[in-house]
Amino acid sequence: MTIQEKAERAKAASLQMATLSTRQKNEALLRIKHTLNEEKNAVFEANEKDLAAAEKNHVPAPLVGRLEFDGAKLTSACEGIDALVKLEDPTGKILSARELDSGLNLYQVSCPIGVIGVIFESRPDALVQISTLCLKSGNTVLLKGGTEALETNRILFELIEKASTEDSDESGLPDGWINLAETRSDVKEMLSLERHVDLLVPRGSNEFVRYIMDNTNIPVLGHADGICHAYVHEDADLDMAARIVVDSKTQYVAVCNALETLLVHKNAVESFLPVVKQKLEEKGVRLRGCEKTRSYIEVQAANDKDWETEYLDLILSVKVVADFEEAVSHINTHGSHHTDVIITGSGSVARDFMMKVDSANVFWNCSTRFSDGFRYGLGAEVGISTSKIHARGPVGLDGLVIYKWQLLGSGQIVADYVDTGRSFTHKPINHA
Amino acid sequence: MTIQEKAERAKAASLQMATLSTRQKNEALLRIKHTLNEEKNAVFEANEKDLAAAEKNHVPAPLVGRLEFDGAKLTSACEGIDALVKLEDPTGKILSARELDSGLNLYQVSCPIGVIGVIFESRPDALVQISTLCLKSGNTVLLKGGTEALETNRILFELIEKASTEDSDESGLPDGWINLAETRSDVKEMLSLERHVDLLVPRGSNEFVRYIMDNTNIPVLGHADGICHAYVHEDADLDMAARIVVDSKTQYVAVCNALETLLVHKNAVESFLPVVKQKLEEKGVRLRGCEKTRSYIEVQAANDKDWETEYLDLILSVKVVADFEEAVSHINTHGSHHTDVIITGSGSVARDFMMKVDSANVFWNCSTRFSDGFRYGLGAEVGISTSKIHARGPVGLDGLVIYKWQLLGSGQIVADYVDTGRSFTHKPINHA
Repeated sequence: MTIQEKAERAKAASLQMATLSTRQKNEALLRIKHTLNEEKNAVFEANEKDLAAAEKNHVPAPLVGRLEFDGAKLTSACEGIDALVKLEDPTGKILSARELDSGLNLYQVSCPIGVIGVIFESRPDALVQISTLCLKSGNTVLLKGGTEALETNRILFELIEKASTEDSDESGLPDGWINLAETRSDVKEMLSLERHVDLLVPRGSNEFVRYIMDNTNIPVLGHADGICHAYVHEDADLDMAARIVVDSKTQYVAVCNALETLLVHKNAVESFLPVVKQKLEEKGVRLRGCEKTRSYIEVQAANDKDWETEYLDLILSVKVVADFEEAVSHINTHGSHHTDVIITGSGSVARDFMMKVDSANVFWNCSTRFSDGFRYGLGAEVGISTSKIHARGPVGLDGLVIYKWQLLGSGQIVADYVDTGRSFTHKPINHA
Repeated sequence: MTIQEKAERAKAASLQMATLSTRQKNEALLRIKHTLNEEKNAVFEANEKDLAAAEKNHVPAPLVGRLEFDGAKLTSACEGIDALVKLEDPTGKILSARELDSGLNLYQVSCPIGVIGVIFESRPDALVQISTLCLKSGNTVLLKGGTEALETNRILFELIEKASTEDSDESGLPDGWINLAETRSDVKEMLSLERHVDLLVPRGSNEFVRYIMDNTNIPVLGHADGICHAYVHEDADLDMAARIVVDSKTQYVAVCNALETLLVHKNAVESFLPVVKQKLEEKGVRLRGCEKTRSYIEVQAANDKDWETEYLDLILSVKVVADFEEAVSHINTHGSHHTDVIITGSGSVARDFMMKVDSANVFWNCSTRFSDGFRYGLGAEVGISTSKIHARGPVGLDGLVIYKWQLLGSGQIVADYVDTGRSFTHKPINHA
């Protein structure tokens, strides 16, 4: 089957998927969990093959780590499914309700988006996670995994498809709700399927996501860079500031919400920089500073490129700013609109920062590492988006739904309102 | 100034626009209304020039009608501004609020999207309408109007800019919040400005909107075709069905929510088709029917192309379907996912229809012509979208906003939750 045919199959199945009950979807999720556990040895064997091939091809160690699908990954995937089952169904919710006239009632009702295209790099656990998120939200899915994980992806796909579509009591999901593409050329073709794929969710490196975003007309839910800033205002509690900077930078360096640039108000520099330098260096962080920074502490010189670099490493760039406005302007100009924090004792300065900084996540006196769907209490995370439409920041199941307008009448026609001047009532309908 | 420079200017201004109070925005709107009225003769004179040039260039009559900006258009533009002033500010609303832990509170707050690119064909009144919608929602705007309306667009732009940015008590809008591009090559360049333009709103013909959608990576709010269907189920009240079909088709033929295809259940054909044919023909509608239709009533033969044609004219294609499923399948295959209606006496059949038809507006027993922002009671209409993300169907001011996540802490770091096992409370915060 070509990828276009798979996409058409997914589109056809999406119309049936949209009519499933919450119970049907939850039962399918539990059958998937059961099957993955029952057949775990087949998964581990397939993964061994991928790992052996990776070793043969001298794949770098961090990539091999992401490729691995062992008992721990299985347990975590199954815990994710359990959490999804417990989550409220995001479809079929009445978002607004209004009487337009007597016997003419308008309902805005949430529903699945349709076909989600998922393109991911090496991690096969992403296949389980994203396909079950699509299932719970009533979407169908067209998956394309990394070639390094070919065997693991194939067995996971087959097990999920089998468990979810076959069912003795006829409550299985529609055939074609899940589809797997395997060749590299499929990616390029998938990016051009705007008539069949409604939303793309890429999972992988910055370059990978950037490539997807730049080469498709299909909307993309994701982010390329995560160049996050902490700004230490002149009135900041400097102990708190140091703790937040150290956590934001070092708690987990290889992630999008880790800190990359520290901005310090000129009046806080003298007492703050030596302290934070010591604490960061204790954690192995190398600093790169602007000229003014280097007049207070001994660090390597930062160049213009540093302000726009996502290190994902134990490196932090440091800049002294003259005032609040310079800090905000630096963040809006050089940042990636992901997560930025101010450390200040003033609520009004913080509010100003959170209004003026054009980022998905704007924080006051806490670590940038909190920007995460689970920490936000969304129950699940589809991804983090730096888009300015649809969904922004950590995206839960809500990001995989849209709505339709249902108008329930009793024979009304528009001519009655235009010709005879009948008017609309526009009364809210209680729909709690 | 190049269009890229104008876009950069709009981007810079957008950060200030986002901080304006509702009062500042409403005052600017009222100043714009005042100035348009004061300077109306300058507007009418500019419009005369455009009309004269159009006549000289043998522009077709319907286009000249859209080009006209007279007293009635001005009154209607000013009424639109008054309505906007009364509307609730869509920004700064708390969409959700959650305590993550004691002293660590998360707020999801609505905010402007940023820079809206508006590309419109001949109607200069669109310039006033869309720029004031952007203003009220705190967005900045990059406008490109049709060349036929060059003079009118220019004077309207200048008046709006002057009235909104100049202000003796310093409460004017930021310079650069509104920008006008004038040359045809600007359109192409605008479509490539994805780093500066956050959303495109095209206003014009199907071909025009389709061109925009196919040639940009920027999200587009709009619709190309409006191929709307009415399906008359076997149990329909046939008098009601005929009234709804006649209204949907003829109340205003040149619009996207007018009916283009009528589907009739085979059991209703015999009594319904002759009646509806007569009523439609009384209104001047020419019918085109499938083979089965033509065995009941004498009409021109429809071909495959008819099912995918938006006539925007007094023409209606008619098809007999074997059952409910065939009707739904026809609509999902040949429609444009805009507005579709079922006429049936059964609530459960109607609910099934509204769930299975994948359209922005799904109706039961009323005219397709109701799908409209004002009729829906949205207070304003930015446009009608057939997109599957962000905003769907008639879009009010809500479609011009997104949200950001504000996290207000008191020194919290992630290590405390990971290393010492401190857990999140995830309690809802009452924010009514």
